[in-house]
Amino acid sequence: MSNPHHEKLITPERLAFFSDAVIAITITLDIKVPKVETASALISALAGQWTNYLSFVISFLITGVAWMNHHRMFTYIRKTNNTLLVLNTLFLMWLALIPFVTGLMAEYLAKPAASVGAFVYGMTLTIVGVFFNLIWIYLSRNPGLLLPKVDMREIRFMKRQYSIGFIFYVLATALSLLNASISVGLYILLIIYSAFSFKD
Amino acid sequence: MSNPHHEKLITPERLAFFSDAVIAITITLDIKVPKVETASALISALAGQWTNYLSFVISFLITGVAWMNHHRMFTYIRKTNNTLLVLNTLFLMWLALIPFVTGLMAEYLAKPAASVGAFVYGMTLTIVGVFFNLIWIYLSRNPGLLLPKVDMREIRFMKRQYSIGFIFYVLATALSLLNASISVGLYILLIIYSAFSFKD
Amino acid sequence: MSNPHHEKLITPERLAFFSDAVIAITITLDIKVPKVETASALISALAGQWTNYLSFVISFLITGVAWMNHHRMFTYIRKTNNTLLVLNTLFLMWLALIPFVTGLMAEYLAKPAASVGAFVYGMTLTIVGVFFNLIWIYLSRNPGLLLPKVDMREIRFMKRQYSIGFIFYVLATALSLLNASISVGLYILLIIYSAFSFKD
Amino acid sequence: MSNPHHEKLITPERLAFFSDAVIAITITLDIKVPKVETASALISALAGQWTNYLSFVISFLITGVAWMNHHRMFTYIRKTNNTLLVLNTLFLMWLALIPFVTGLMAEYLAKPAASVGAFVYGMTLTIVGVFFNLIWIYLSRNPGLLLPKVDMREIRFMKRQYSIGFIFYVLATALSLLNASISVGLYILLIIYSAFSFKD
Repeated sequence: MSNPHHEKLITPERLAFFSDAVIAITITLDIKVPKVETASALISALAGQWTNYLSFVISFLITGVAWMNHHRMFTYIRKTNNTLLVLNTLFLMWLALIPFVTGLMAEYLAKPAASVGAFVYGMTLTIVGVFFNLIWIYLSRNPGLLLPKVDMREIRFMKRQYSIGFIFYVLATALSLLNASISVGLYILLIIYSAFSFKD
Repeated sequence: MSNPHHEKLITPERLAFFSDAVIAITITLDIKVPKVETASALISALAGQWTNYLSFVISFLITGVAWMNHHRMFTYIRKTNNTLLVLNTLFLMWLALIPFVTGLMAEYLAKPAASVGAFVYGMTLTIVGVFFNLIWIYLSRNPGLLLPKVDMREIRFMKRQYSIGFIFYVLATALSLLNASISVGLYILLIIYSAFSFKD
Repeated sequence: MSNPHHEKLITPERLAFFSDAVIAITITLDIKVPKVETASALISALAGQWTNYLSFVISFLITGVAWMNHHRMFTYIRKTNNTLLVLNTLFLMWLALIPFVTGLMAEYLAKPAASVGAFVYGMTLTIVGVFFNLIWIYLSRNPGLLLPKVDMREIRFMKRQYSIGFIFYVLATALSLLNASISVGLYILLIIYSAFSFKD
Repeated sequence: MSNPHHEKLITPERLAFFSDAVIAITITLDIKVPKVETASALISALAGQWTNYLSFVISFLITGVAWMNHHRMFTYIRKTNNTLLVLNTLFLMWLALIPFVTGLMAEYLAKPAASVGAFVYGMTLTIVGVFFNLIWIYLSRNPGLLLPKVDMREIRFMKRQYSIGFIFYVLATALSLLNASISVGLYILLIIYSAFSFKD
């Protein structure tokens, strides 16, 4: 029943935990069950929902990558402060938009307004990336918040990786105005790149 | 597999954790994807949902502030008791209404019944604030529940900050009956104030 | 990155944590925002949803009580086993029905079929109570699962309290067939009783 | 406020925790409250939803079994690496499809297209099982990731049990094409088998 150490602000652990819970909730699937009569009509209806499955897979895996990066970042943090809390809250707020923009992209991916859906989706990911990079830049300029033994090669590796991810988002968002499929292709490339780029 | 220390009631850690999970769930977004034909119609439809985005942003950030304050409060708690559990449950219950009242405010913010939605929203926040302040008042009158080394300047700082937040809610709720936009403006001011008022 | 102690089964901590997450999700509110034109129509529509608010409050607080009892029970557990895991899973499964049966009771509380909704609601709570009591009975018959220093007065106090809660559920369920309002009244009594019966 | 040990990647604990939160969210119930007039019509309508209840029970218990196995597996892990994170993310992604495929099976179980719903449901469980077994195979081929004192009899017991579960899924999926009821029967058998097969 006792709380052994008195801590004046929120610990990195607590912040990571709360972020985890919010991230876990954002990666739920929301696809409507089609209401048809025959088996063949059901197969067609399910196949017709391919934009929903594709959008879900992209969003789940991009959010998974974001979670891994967020967690890795938190392993370097010794203590939190007000600015860090505010930046993290803004990062989570934009991340919480993902179910909505995923549904939007899915709804229009095979329709004339595909570019609008893909652009809004890309913009949301880009802004998530902006806040993620802002947290990282803030931390690297405030080494007092980081653990003393942080390896600078790791920091540089992460900086480079996060920038590449961010450039992907900006590019995919810009190209969505030309063609939504190109931006979807770039998201898939980003996910494959991320899956192989983590150092063990 | 072993539970090293036998604790008769719920620890502050557990209570904070459960509260975190409930709070994380309350800050999810629930906006319907518009169903239209053309790209320009989609842009108009998305723009027409601005009251939903604004309400989401306000609710997410106010809940974020509530989470930070709740966590800070728990860093002062040494042990829990029955009254604290009951007050915290009532605090969470009113907080769990936020998705509903956010949807209500969003639906009517640009319609004739805007004041009704904004008033119900403000009342909910006010009651959340009442229970938050009741927890704090109860704790400050039962120092046996607090950690021994608690800094009284911190306590006074928090008391002042929580009261200012509460006055904002009461004011915003009262003014919503005159004009819903004024109360929305006050919520935005409260969020900006909160973002800068945390001590590092 | 290391996992210091090798544990063959799930720890009481982990089981409590997973249960917490499931319980937190079951106490969310799902009330539809009314779609009307004028302010007075909105006030009437909101007032007309009173059965939803009442059902939400009852479910939130009963689930809150269940959470507190579940947590208190887990403070006595030294280790878990297969039977305990199965009983806890069945307890959570019935608890996960609460949002559905709450919506059902709310929909019909002011309608001719009120007794059906209240009976299904009461039956669900009763079965939740059956599994809760089964866990407790199983634990008290397998002291090897409990911590060595468990105070038998505490155990008896909890046994008595859990039985009283269970009798309330059975009674409320049976009386719902006569009159739904009586069973709602009993739930409110149970909540008030629970709020005052925890030992600090 | 301090983070005592610097860890370069995500700890098994953190990964287990995040997985817990995602799993907890996937086992929520989503059944519509029927809208009818009389008590007898409500009883009929509720009885008519039996496919929803059956599908919910199967999904809740299968997910519960998956959670227990996932947790048991994590008690053997000493550290994580990139491949493990990717495999776990893909496992969770397919698990996150369960609410959708449960709704699909429930909607069509008593209709002509029952086989389609049951096949899609079985395929999803089978792929969840594929990734679960891939994680286990990867771990057993990379003993550096496991704790040093791991008992090889336990490992063999788990391998056998996971394979049996997987064969059940493949069989149920294949047989769903002949008759959806047979596959439902096999899921129930699998759950009963799992409930009794855990070693204490």
